[in-house]
Amino acid sequence: MIYLDNAATTLHKPPQVIEAVAEAMRSSGNPARGAHGSSLQASRTVYGARAKIAALFHCPRPDHVVFTSNVTEALNTAINGLIRPGDHVITTDLEHNSVLRPLYRLAAERDVALDFVPADRRGNLDYAMFSQLMRPNTRAIVCTHASNLTGNLVDLRQVSAAARAGGALLIVDAAQTAGCLPIDMEALGIDVLCFTGHKGLMGPQGTGGLCVRAGVEIAPLKVGGTGVQSYSPTQPAEYPTRLEAGTLNAHGIAGLSAAVDYLNEIGIPAIHEKETALMRRFLRGVRDIPGVTVYGDFSGDRAAIVALNIRDYDSGEVSDALAQDYGIATRPGAHCAPRMHRALGTEQQGAVRFSFSWYNTEAETDQAIRAVRELAEE
Amino acid sequence: MIYLDNAATTLHKPPQVIEAVAEAMRSSGNPARGAHGSSLQASRTVYGARAKIAALFHCPRPDHVVFTSNVTEALNTAINGLIRPGDHVITTDLEHNSVLRPLYRLAAERDVALDFVPADRRGNLDYAMFSQLMRPNTRAIVCTHASNLTGNLVDLRQVSAAARAGGALLIVDAAQTAGCLPIDMEALGIDVLCFTGHKGLMGPQGTGGLCVRAGVEIAPLKVGGTGVQSYSPTQPAEYPTRLEAGTLNAHGIAGLSAAVDYLNEIGIPAIHEKETALMRRFLRGVRDIPGVTVYGDFSGDRAAIVALNIRDYDSGEVSDALAQDYGIATRPGAHCAPRMHRALGTEQQGAVRFSFSWYNTEAETDQAIRAVRELAEE
Repeated sequence: MIYLDNAATTLHKPPQVIEAVAEAMRSSGNPARGAHGSSLQASRTVYGARAKIAALFHCPRPDHVVFTSNVTEALNTAINGLIRPGDHVITTDLEHNSVLRPLYRLAAERDVALDFVPADRRGNLDYAMFSQLMRPNTRAIVCTHASNLTGNLVDLRQVSAAARAGGALLIVDAAQTAGCLPIDMEALGIDVLCFTGHKGLMGPQGTGGLCVRAGVEIAPLKVGGTGVQSYSPTQPAEYPTRLEAGTLNAHGIAGLSAAVDYLNEIGIPAIHEKETALMRRFLRGVRDIPGVTVYGDFSGDRAAIVALNIRDYDSGEVSDALAQDYGIATRPGAHCAPRMHRALGTEQQGAVRFSFSWYNTEAETDQAIRAVRELAEE
Repeated sequence: MIYLDNAATTLHKPPQVIEAVAEAMRSSGNPARGAHGSSLQASRTVYGARAKIAALFHCPRPDHVVFTSNVTEALNTAINGLIRPGDHVITTDLEHNSVLRPLYRLAAERDVALDFVPADRRGNLDYAMFSQLMRPNTRAIVCTHASNLTGNLVDLRQVSAAARAGGALLIVDAAQTAGCLPIDMEALGIDVLCFTGHKGLMGPQGTGGLCVRAGVEIAPLKVGGTGVQSYSPTQPAEYPTRLEAGTLNAHGIAGLSAAVDYLNEIGIPAIHEKETALMRRFLRGVRDIPGVTVYGDFSGDRAAIVALNIRDYDSGEVSDALAQDYGIATRPGAHCAPRMHRALGTEQQGAVRFSFSWYNTEAETDQAIRAVRELAEE
């Protein structure tokens, strides 16, 4: 199978990631729940992973790296833990339901006001709007780093400047970019960076988290046992314990830690360069095929995603044909990004998304181009 | 190392569990996020795990088995998703902070009233209290199946009868019993059964969940992408999607599925019998050693846990000595069960917990007895 659904989850994990998980399952106890060897080993693995993630994203304090089960949990934690009744929030048409649904719920239940920076037909934002929409009670801008549908990047420097000028927090969804291109949360002025482990970071499912700028006080989404301060009726206030109730997925985190080692060995810029080259090769091959419509803006730096449709064919049927007749895995349909589909005019048809990873090859890319051409000629 | 900290996490996993996780990491896509082979394979694995968990706990509907990252998340989901402002809740002194802290938070922030069924010095409950504490606005009884400190079982039949008579829901924390002894949620009248994957079920960390009786409507703790109904601004109402936002830990769930197969091969009653025999062997060996105090009630069926102290020695120092001088892993301190320590009178000293699993042996148990004897003679 040619796997081009890496924006959903990377299928090919480095062998050392799988081995690290297996080894943790053979030897790791419960982190922070004892002082015997296997428990201490688990604690060291988890702390090591925090330090590596902190270094990767330029989070100044490793103890402000909090682990969650995925980026959706990270976003729910940040959004629900920071935004209060009566607050105003600015977000964008590019967002995934992991941002939209928590915000819609706060709007419906907690008197939170929302404004959206609209996307144009190519999926681009008008950055001046962030400042124009700012109000005295704007608590946060919640913004993706790249559209999971088109791959368009958001210029976080401009968003960050608007947030800072307006006294608002900047919460970033890095689901599509963590591990795929360099992210410096200090330089970019990000207050909370939410990431997932199983996509670009090439780690196991069940991992993810948030990097929190010191001084940003997030109320916990869930509370419970922490192995420390057992007699306190409330969750400890210190990060990371503050947001980590219950036993961590130390098995998965061991894999994530090995994945970050692997990424650092290659270097994120090299990964980004290769993925970009494959994505652009694919784009060149398909964009002029009669009947093919490609969505998004390819003029600048971006994530390695190409979303397209063939004539008025249902995107689900095209994706099925790619899987069954060509052995090519893609994702069709609505991609949990309803506002983006409305902006692109693909609400009914959905779109077929091709997303590339470090493990893909030029030969696979060329086979995908041929498949699109043949389907367009039918 | 002799690992007797199985109530924190089971260190020894069946080899097929580790292999199932590794195989899923080699071949599984994102469940419910596409129709290509690897995504469908992940979906089938997850559905298979739901069906096995449903059968194990006698949950009538596999689609009402919801996966979470651990039992703490399951309990937070059930408690926050069912208990409303103005409600009254009955719980017990046996509870872990994973039950206490969510309830304390609701009491502090959402006008929820709490009552506790007290434990006596042996850690036993007076079951008549459940009915006596019942009020017209009692929404739920939240109750552990076994104390994580003493191993005392709670008679869920009596608790369930009180809940039913009072029109309250019964939410059960099975952290210490799932996989260790048979649980029939239908026969016991449990409305929500919360379990973790990495303890008695011998599965990977990062797995757990809740089994929900049909008709019990839990509001989601987190919302986001689901791969279905992308254009709905709210989380889909159907179980399990209702409570499962974001990409599931399909790698871990594959391991949990293999773990349940392993448990079924041996049979839960056989596991319970062996663990009980080891626990009672240990008890017989230590209870009459001068200076040793054992906590809890051993007159009936129970979880395979023995908590003790030696003279007035700090439990942390005893546990350290066991680890360093004897290679025996136990857990000391407060065990995230503050009210239970108060009931037992061990608030200052904590307790050293020995907890047994299917993989322990009589020889290991005898070594632990000798170690306790030697430490008590010092």
